[in-house]
Amino acid sequence: MAFRTTLRVRFGDEDHARIVYFPRIIHFFHCAFEDFFDHQGHPYRRVLDEDGFGWPAVHVETDFHSPIRFGDDLDIDVSVAELGTKSATFVYEASVGGRRTASARITVACIDMKTFRGVAIPDVFRELFSRHLVEG
Amino acid sequence: MAFRTTLRVRFGDEDHARIVYFPRIIHFFHCAFEDFFDHQGHPYRRVLDEDGFGWPAVHVETDFHSPIRFGDDLDIDVSVAELGTKSATFVYEASVGGRRTASARITVACIDMKTFRGVAIPDVFRELFSRHLVEG
Amino acid sequence: MAFRTTLRVRFGDEDHARIVYFPRIIHFFHCAFEDFFDHQGHPYRRVLDEDGFGWPAVHVETDFHSPIRFGDDLDIDVSVAELGTKSATFVYEASVGGRRTASARITVACIDMKTFRGVAIPDVFRELFSRHLVEG
Amino acid sequence: MAFRTTLRVRFGDEDHARIVYFPRIIHFFHCAFEDFFDHQGHPYRRVLDEDGFGWPAVHVETDFHSPIRFGDDLDIDVSVAELGTKSATFVYEASVGGRRTASARITVACIDMKTFRGVAIPDVFRELFSRHLVEG
Repeated sequence: MAFRTTLRVRFGDEDHARIVYFPRIIHFFHCAFEDFFDHQGHPYRRVLDEDGFGWPAVHVETDFHSPIRFGDDLDIDVSVAELGTKSATFVYEASVGGRRTASARITVACIDMKTFRGVAIPDVFRELFSRHLVEG
Repeated sequence: MAFRTTLRVRFGDEDHARIVYFPRIIHFFHCAFEDFFDHQGHPYRRVLDEDGFGWPAVHVETDFHSPIRFGDDLDIDVSVAELGTKSATFVYEASVGGRRTASARITVACIDMKTFRGVAIPDVFRELFSRHLVEG
Repeated sequence: MAFRTTLRVRFGDEDHARIVYFPRIIHFFHCAFEDFFDHQGHPYRRVLDEDGFGWPAVHVETDFHSPIRFGDDLDIDVSVAELGTKSATFVYEASVGGRRTASARITVACIDMKTFRGVAIPDVFRELFSRHLVEG
Repeated sequence: MAFRTTLRVRFGDEDHARIVYFPRIIHFFHCAFEDFFDHQGHPYRRVLDEDGFGWPAVHVETDFHSPIRFGDDLDIDVSVAELGTKSATFVYEASVGGRRTASARITVACIDMKTFRGVAIPDVFRELFSRHLVEG
């Protein structure tokens, strides 16, 4: 039910402690969010610029379970935990070769890109999200 | 009681929606964490490399209240909400000219940089943190 | 004659080799370019959004002399080596405590932010740049 | 003769002018350098950590020809223009759907990762590089 994408961890993604800098992991979750749209018929750029809907994060909760390192292929499973009228909560589970590394719940608002005001999630995206809705 | 630092928001910090990319805001919180040590007698690099203690984030909760933009001077107030034996929870309140923009609670573990294992927070840092402890 | 600004090198600026990731140094040069405007009466955001002039890099040449590390205060001296009708070449000299670390020549075009087309550098900026013009 | 890799340009890669922030393009060139090793039998992390050879950039020259945007698939062709005893100059040509966007010549030194001193390029990498040597 979850959508999976895989990202390559780069030489420059690590910090002084030689593990991936944690704000970079939040960036990876956003890349997975883009892939979620891109790979399921809704190129994310088109969603924003042509369809006219944006999805700013309003709340983020993340747990870091084990280090991610340069050279890792990071698998990220994306699902939807809550689907409201004007917002949705996505769940991300990141792992490397089956080892759990980080997880997040990110709530995004749906906004009109012209006004930056919250709007109801359009049916086409509600349908997309509901295909990945999980309990929990 | 909170420690305040101010960061300059840069041209390259924005994303396609022309507001600061939200993982970048998490980076700003980490910069404030570094300044917290640096400006209070414990240069953060020395803490890691000479004192030998690291502070990896294990849990992050963030709320985004209003957009941050290139050219803004971002004030970040840092305080401590919880002080455990081996971990501490820092609170960050970010604002621009008094307007609330983002807030976070970030729990860090105290580790020995040689073994990457959790250890008790040394007294010198416990004392530093407790000076900024707030009820939360 | 050169304009000097100082930037703090951060924990997350290093890469797997535990020195600053070199594309990040190019970012520092851009921060110095922003400061050059900001600190001399032309807030860079206003230059772009109100005055309506942009300065995209068209050519970059950089030499890396010695490593830059997390915790360093990076001094960057900015001067102007060439001042054409529609473009200018800035010179950056980066050092840490007097030790030379990196240098760059970055040529920027002057564009109209509405059309993204090259235009003549307006007198107000020509004057600003010429105050920092050096031979060489 | 050139090695080609393709990178996805992300939402967060753009700057306030809504084109890719140019230091980010230098990062893309480094990603292509990593892929050059990874995809030809020498995982870049192993090269550094097990083989013990590092490749810091000592000189970078880049030209920016046309904008790169979020959502673009950036093709980067990597070849070798010069192959010295202790250094090599790589050439990068970046394009989007055949449109030329940016090019670079990046000279890297070969160093021993234990001493950070320059050493002769080992035969195994000399052979790899020479397979991509072009007249330049």
